[in-house]
Amino acid sequence: MNRITRQLDADPLIELALKEDIDHGDISTQAVAPEYAPGAADLIAKQDGIAAGLGVFARTFELLDPDTSCSFTVKDGDRVVKGQKIGEVRGDIRVLLSGERTALNYLQRMSGIATYTARVVKMLEGSGIKLLDTRKTTPNNRIFEKYAVVCGGGNNHRYNLSSGVMLKDNHINAAGGISNAVKMTRESVPFVMKIEVEVETLDMVREAALAGADIIMLDNMDHETMKEAVKIIGGRALTECSGNVTAENIESLKDLGIDYISCGALTHSAPILDFSMKNLRRTAQ
Amino acid sequence: MNRITRQLDADPLIELALKEDIDHGDISTQAVAPEYAPGAADLIAKQDGIAAGLGVFARTFELLDPDTSCSFTVKDGDRVVKGQKIGEVRGDIRVLLSGERTALNYLQRMSGIATYTARVVKMLEGSGIKLLDTRKTTPNNRIFEKYAVVCGGGNNHRYNLSSGVMLKDNHINAAGGISNAVKMTRESVPFVMKIEVEVETLDMVREAALAGADIIMLDNMDHETMKEAVKIIGGRALTECSGNVTAENIESLKDLGIDYISCGALTHSAPILDFSMKNLRRTAQ
Amino acid sequence: MNRITRQLDADPLIELALKEDIDHGDISTQAVAPEYAPGAADLIAKQDGIAAGLGVFARTFELLDPDTSCSFTVKDGDRVVKGQKIGEVRGDIRVLLSGERTALNYLQRMSGIATYTARVVKMLEGSGIKLLDTRKTTPNNRIFEKYAVVCGGGNNHRYNLSSGVMLKDNHINAAGGISNAVKMTRESVPFVMKIEVEVETLDMVREAALAGADIIMLDNMDHETMKEAVKIIGGRALTECSGNVTAENIESLKDLGIDYISCGALTHSAPILDFSMKNLRRTAQ
Amino acid sequence: MNRITRQLDADPLIELALKEDIDHGDISTQAVAPEYAPGAADLIAKQDGIAAGLGVFARTFELLDPDTSCSFTVKDGDRVVKGQKIGEVRGDIRVLLSGERTALNYLQRMSGIATYTARVVKMLEGSGIKLLDTRKTTPNNRIFEKYAVVCGGGNNHRYNLSSGVMLKDNHINAAGGISNAVKMTRESVPFVMKIEVEVETLDMVREAALAGADIIMLDNMDHETMKEAVKIIGGRALTECSGNVTAENIESLKDLGIDYISCGALTHSAPILDFSMKNLRRTAQ
Amino acid sequence: MNRITRQLDADPLIELALKEDIDHGDISTQAVAPEYAPGAADLIAKQDGIAAGLGVFARTFELLDPDTSCSFTVKDGDRVVKGQKIGEVRGDIRVLLSGERTALNYLQRMSGIATYTARVVKMLEGSGIKLLDTRKTTPNNRIFEKYAVVCGGGNNHRYNLSSGVMLKDNHINAAGGISNAVKMTRESVPFVMKIEVEVETLDMVREAALAGADIIMLDNMDHETMKEAVKIIGGRALTECSGNVTAENIESLKDLGIDYISCGALTHSAPILDFSMKNLRRTAQ
Amino acid sequence: MNRITRQLDADPLIELALKEDIDHGDISTQAVAPEYAPGAADLIAKQDGIAAGLGVFARTFELLDPDTSCSFTVKDGDRVVKGQKIGEVRGDIRVLLSGERTALNYLQRMSGIATYTARVVKMLEGSGIKLLDTRKTTPNNRIFEKYAVVCGGGNNHRYNLSSGVMLKDNHINAAGGISNAVKMTRESVPFVMKIEVEVETLDMVREAALAGADIIMLDNMDHETMKEAVKIIGGRALTECSGNVTAENIESLKDLGIDYISCGALTHSAPILDFSMKNLRRTAQ
Repeated sequence: MNRITRQLDADPLIELALKEDIDHGDISTQAVAPEYAPGAADLIAKQDGIAAGLGVFARTFELLDPDTSCSFTVKDGDRVVKGQKIGEVRGDIRVLLSGERTALNYLQRMSGIATYTARVVKMLEGSGIKLLDTRKTTPNNRIFEKYAVVCGGGNNHRYNLSSGVMLKDNHINAAGGISNAVKMTRESVPFVMKIEVEVETLDMVREAALAGADIIMLDNMDHETMKEAVKIIGGRALTECSGNVTAENIESLKDLGIDYISCGALTHSAPILDFSMKNLRRTAQ
Repeated sequence: MNRITRQLDADPLIELALKEDIDHGDISTQAVAPEYAPGAADLIAKQDGIAAGLGVFARTFELLDPDTSCSFTVKDGDRVVKGQKIGEVRGDIRVLLSGERTALNYLQRMSGIATYTARVVKMLEGSGIKLLDTRKTTPNNRIFEKYAVVCGGGNNHRYNLSSGVMLKDNHINAAGGISNAVKMTRESVPFVMKIEVEVETLDMVREAALAGADIIMLDNMDHETMKEAVKIIGGRALTECSGNVTAENIESLKDLGIDYISCGALTHSAPILDFSMKNLRRTAQ
Repeated sequence: MNRITRQLDADPLIELALKEDIDHGDISTQAVAPEYAPGAADLIAKQDGIAAGLGVFARTFELLDPDTSCSFTVKDGDRVVKGQKIGEVRGDIRVLLSGERTALNYLQRMSGIATYTARVVKMLEGSGIKLLDTRKTTPNNRIFEKYAVVCGGGNNHRYNLSSGVMLKDNHINAAGGISNAVKMTRESVPFVMKIEVEVETLDMVREAALAGADIIMLDNMDHETMKEAVKIIGGRALTECSGNVTAENIESLKDLGIDYISCGALTHSAPILDFSMKNLRRTAQ
Repeated sequence: MNRITRQLDADPLIELALKEDIDHGDISTQAVAPEYAPGAADLIAKQDGIAAGLGVFARTFELLDPDTSCSFTVKDGDRVVKGQKIGEVRGDIRVLLSGERTALNYLQRMSGIATYTARVVKMLEGSGIKLLDTRKTTPNNRIFEKYAVVCGGGNNHRYNLSSGVMLKDNHINAAGGISNAVKMTRESVPFVMKIEVEVETLDMVREAALAGADIIMLDNMDHETMKEAVKIIGGRALTECSGNVTAENIESLKDLGIDYISCGALTHSAPILDFSMKNLRRTAQ
Repeated sequence: MNRITRQLDADPLIELALKEDIDHGDISTQAVAPEYAPGAADLIAKQDGIAAGLGVFARTFELLDPDTSCSFTVKDGDRVVKGQKIGEVRGDIRVLLSGERTALNYLQRMSGIATYTARVVKMLEGSGIKLLDTRKTTPNNRIFEKYAVVCGGGNNHRYNLSSGVMLKDNHINAAGGISNAVKMTRESVPFVMKIEVEVETLDMVREAALAGADIIMLDNMDHETMKEAVKIIGGRALTECSGNVTAENIESLKDLGIDYISCGALTHSAPILDFSMKNLRRTAQ
Repeated sequence: MNRITRQLDADPLIELALKEDIDHGDISTQAVAPEYAPGAADLIAKQDGIAAGLGVFARTFELLDPDTSCSFTVKDGDRVVKGQKIGEVRGDIRVLLSGERTALNYLQRMSGIATYTARVVKMLEGSGIKLLDTRKTTPNNRIFEKYAVVCGGGNNHRYNLSSGVMLKDNHINAAGGISNAVKMTRESVPFVMKIEVEVETLDMVREAALAGADIIMLDNMDHETMKEAVKIIGGRALTECSGNVTAENIESLKDLGIDYISCGALTHSAPILDFSMKNLRRTAQ
């Protein structure tokens, strides 16, 4: 994660998460370790998968205490295997104890997303189709989850409602049809934005292409209809396929000749990848 | 969710999540619906499961615009079935369009947790064992996720590091043994707290019981060892079983005679329960 | 300004501005008006121009006290003339006194920008060229200033560094040339974004067009060079002209056949349009 | 700017401004400069004028990344000439690229105010009259703009409604006359404050002087009336002249024998002073 | 407290205090009163004294739940007697239970200060000397404590370091003597401020009066020296006496002919005035 | 105070307190010390007592300027005597001047509480009874005041409404009796919490003991009744005595055989312990 993004966007959220867990004090740690003591602990992968969020893991400890340091033997996007020691945290034992859960909560979730993403990306191999995430992210975790998708080899769709245009059925109804919706949008949004239109029928495909949509998203169509849609569009717009795509059904979409497939499950239903902090020990310094 | 908790804890997070998604404006909606127009949309369940977070769903729209109103035909904790219309949102069409994703992101995640929890609780039926959540929650979503566990029939373990004592291996090492750790804790933490000790061997079980631990957590023990541990404790402390418990393996623990089982998967690996907002329409008022 | 945008983006800034001016209390008003007293005051234009920010003016008082109400005889984007009464504020006299300066500071600056913008837009009339703003806005006032540009008939360029791509000389250098910069960008940024390249020479124009830039910005070129550039591009990309454009020199650009002209002066150097609150009086209720 | 003021007041505003512009990431810079690379750029004046805000310019980069450093060949209040290199920024190229616009937006506006102020101060030379700013500042920029006025040789009037008393016509009406307003204020506000009364007629001048006003502000009076007013006051109070004073008309006020002239245009209508960051280059370290 | 001050200054602090006490939920109340139930409770004085902070008490409940209402039979500044019912709170029983402690903590402290202040003011009766508070307030409670001093009949000295000038020994040393310190200050601070100088010897008194100090504070002088100091000043400046003044020793200062006495004990050492909320009961509505 | 607690909880409050006092600038210091100058000052105790808050005192200066350093000859909990120099602050003279009041306000209040607590603890010596604080703390100062109680030798009761259960008369009424209240609580609150019940009569004592309360608080009982209550409880629950306990009356409770006495006066009515910063001087570096 870019240092500026981390500082402006991630840091305040990590601090909020630390406050959520530590609140007015970690009473267990204060009881048994009232004084400063230097120590270290190992970061161990407990499952096979793709690591993502090592910087966030490290940052969590640093925000509690800038004198904490982490070193890793892998980097974000690398494959880890069960039992592998992938890093070490060094600092005040009290900081290691109090920050552990929050740091792991980030790392496990981000790595879970990267692992799931990598699995789906692999299924699309050779098809030329790019895998996209969605806005179906966990509230107040988008910056982390979209980054994890990239670590897993996926691509980011628009970040939020400000940074991309998508005209769905409801927008189209509000505007009274696709042509009008595209026209109103062209006049209103900054001209640096492409206009994406979500369509459900071949008639809508035709209208969107004619209206000059830059991207046409085929939503919940069956296989045959999508094939026909791609033919109709004929390169006049980029094509995206969407709708309950998961690792279970994505391979059937490989032959469609579409440009992108978006998949909400990457961020809303990936299980975590398990890690633990082990072997906490006092150190000389 | 209690109204006070919602206002003090949930509202600021929901507002942050709205800002995360809407940022400096929903440019698509602004383009096609520049003016106020009253409307309504239906909330539809797309999978079978347990609903949780209806109040958060409604609150998301209200925080965008207090003139939005939601009505539901089910309440948190109720079972919903695929295709069921479970509610309706009414208000400015622009608010419905701009708030939809954030509101659904909360509802889907919370309902996913409640659904998974209910499934595990059912497996424990008849055993007298209570199911507990953990602190393995998504950062900045604990207030929502712990509430969802209760909707699914589970129970909350300590909320965070301030509101409960747990002495793990690392704390015990820091204090130089279980007896000393319990003693130091007894002297330091407010006397209103029970003291929980995590143990991994039968020797530790004996030492914890002798030290006067109020709760003994059996961590990652095999079935036989746990049985023996419960016998050793003999009612001197409450017992909790922990360690990679999931819906897949929990039934084997029913005969142990323990008081509690804690399960991180409830909050860290439950897939979402799918909902959608459909049939957005203009209304007379 | 859209109600959601106002609430999420404008309100916190207006509150901060009120705090900046009122701080721990308006000691003059507290001294002479210690008790509640209903009153009203008139909003008068003191110069000819375009009004912008009436909603922000009203909101400033409402945020101090929700029982304040404003009515206006004009709306944002309308022309006002010197001496014209354009509205009335009603509420607690203490609120009118304490909120006056902050409310006027917003209204005057926004109307000044709208007035300047309208003047420049008029100069481009008939040319088909659209006038754009820039990111040269007053810190923490962008949401207000970009809105004011639209009130004056201008168009918004990208809102910020997240919501649009612009590759300037420094980016091009960092990437080692235009082709490579465009290629790296195409692979990295969400595919919903167009890619704009800033060029200074005709060679750069050629390279940008060839690299597939969606928008080419002609920066600080002389008139002849720009004409030639537009010819070279030949419709392969949208064209924007930039560089110290002001009301004084913009007319000379009308015959270039470019699509857009961007002008930093709209937001960084427009003088205010003067308004005052007059005739404060007690009212029956 | 005093280091404490900068930290308590300016830093949070600068951070907010950085967030306004960079948001969830500078996507152009991330695309072409994904990795750390040390670099430098020059700060060049593009117009003649007075520099103000160099510390704020530097601070903007430091807040993004503490490893950035700036050096300047001039200091706040110094005269700069078109084309002059006045400083250098060194640090991560990505930081230079992402912070540039926000840093320049501050520097240009502050220097514009200082330049305009210096011009007006020069017109008053020899008269013994001191030039004052007003509360007509840009919302959330007062700390910067009042500082810039001082850099240009001007003086600050009260900072805000908490830190000075000014009784205007509306206050006087609310209290039922000048004598009563002054009396009520004397009893209510902390005794460390002087009391300033704004007057519009010679009768009001007499009443204010008699009531013991510490400062009398002559508002929108013609030249003859002001002369008479100063005679009436006869040194019993400090005198201030106000009302649409600009660089165009201020010289006519030099012979009045008043103590202060306040001028809203200093902060609300000064155009920026143009600067640019040029010659961004990679450096060895 | 003025409504604007309350909203801008007090509300955020009250909300912070509620969060401090209620945090992630009032678990006792949630357990025994899971549902909404309308109720009422009485506010009873448990000691004789002066009430202050009734509005803050009410506001605490309203900020938790706007449907709560308070009515009082006394107002701020009124005398209350032990056992007197002075008000009633009505609303959701859960709100009454959860807000009680925070509301009382404010009311008791503010009333304690008002009571102590009134006692000291009474001692000065007939002397013409005004009693002042200081900046020795409880951190993050100044807005409440300075208001309570006024309720008790005292007067406010400067609010903080921004809203008044006081030159103490350290400032004088830094400037190299009183004359220079006053001169530097006259040139630097806004001219609306009076200049106060703290002196410890008669030589300093003479120098301060000569330098044109507006206010001279006699710090820790003995009775005779103060008498002499007042004579030396001879009306050229306002006089203030300071230094460990308490209710125990203040009467000896009555004959000094000084204008003001400041007393830190008002805010730093007044014990609370005890109140309780009693007779919580369910109500029909 | 634990470093993590200080950073997460104390720092934001200290910063808020500095902003409360310094606001938009310390105008006196800016006038007489416009430039950086290294200096030092002594911290002197002006009364006998127990020091508490030295870390907070130091932190106040560090938060203004990280280049400030403090050294102390005593530590929190140590006894100090009138006139004793207990520390030194070194740094920019402007920082010493501007931070002094806020730093002392914390130190004096915290030390006052520690001193009062130590006095009460001494009275209980030999009785085996532990002294507890309450939630009757100054709003937004709990983290400091509870820490000060520990410095004085006292113990902390629950931190807030989230971190402990207390069933008072109102809770009991809401639940319809003690048994039901305890039962509802046992089912609802996390099982790591002990349940405390407040009782006023011997019948309530019996019911609470029978219901399985973990702690029974005897509220406002007379001496004989309390003796009888302790006998009835017979070790089935921990016992706490409460109700207007002060240094004046606490000794009479020593023979009761109870476990804990709680005392609101520790935090709500302790006068400050006086300290001053003296001998500010310029230093070589």
